[in-house]
Amino acid sequence: MARFEKHLFICCNRREAGHARGCCDPTASEALHKAFKKVLAERGLNRRMRANKAGCLDQCEKGPTVVVYPEAVWYGRVTEADVTEIVEQHLIGGTPVARLLMPEDEAANPPR
Amino acid sequence: MARFEKHLFICCNRREAGHARGCCDPTASEALHKAFKKVLAERGLNRRMRANKAGCLDQCEKGPTVVVYPEAVWYGRVTEADVTEIVEQHLIGGTPVARLLMPEDEAANPPR
Repeated sequence: MARFEKHLFICCNRREAGHARGCCDPTASEALHKAFKKVLAERGLNRRMRANKAGCLDQCEKGPTVVVYPEAVWYGRVTEADVTEIVEQHLIGGTPVARLLMPEDEAANPPR
Repeated sequence: MARFEKHLFICCNRREAGHARGCCDPTASEALHKAFKKVLAERGLNRRMRANKAGCLDQCEKGPTVVVYPEAVWYGRVTEADVTEIVEQHLIGGTPVARLLMPEDEAANPPR
């Protein structure tokens, strides 16, 4: 059933300034999503792998958040500078980028 | 690593009227996403399972599109009337709703 070998969802949620939970895309630039699309296209992967915009992934405190399916690898604090490494090491090479993995020791769904 | 037992992505993409590919949410109502959220919450599943808004999932001709991870089950032509059945039969019961499965015989990524 899989239509993409790797399917990335990049949180592009924006909340008002000063919100207690923060948000993944405070400037609403969608720059992280654009960076993944660009790197996938440059490597000719954009039909096998897809970088998708997503609404709030509910990990706001650890964002900007990216989740990679089908393996359900969650990344936090991702910046544009990390995109090439995630694509090359994880999506192509098969090894998630350990330093960016979202910690398990914080509640996945804190109270809102 | 999974933070949600089931993670649904509901395409909320809107294109201008008359676009050759159409789109999944022509009225920009996000009604399908809201319906999934409502049914999950009513059944107390909204911390174990998440219904997320998504940008274009690139299956426009067969939309409105919903994909369920981690199993990568793709649904097409989903309406609000289908939401309870997907939640009960698939997300809770484990059996995808066959009549809504996206056909494999159309190109997954037609030219744009």
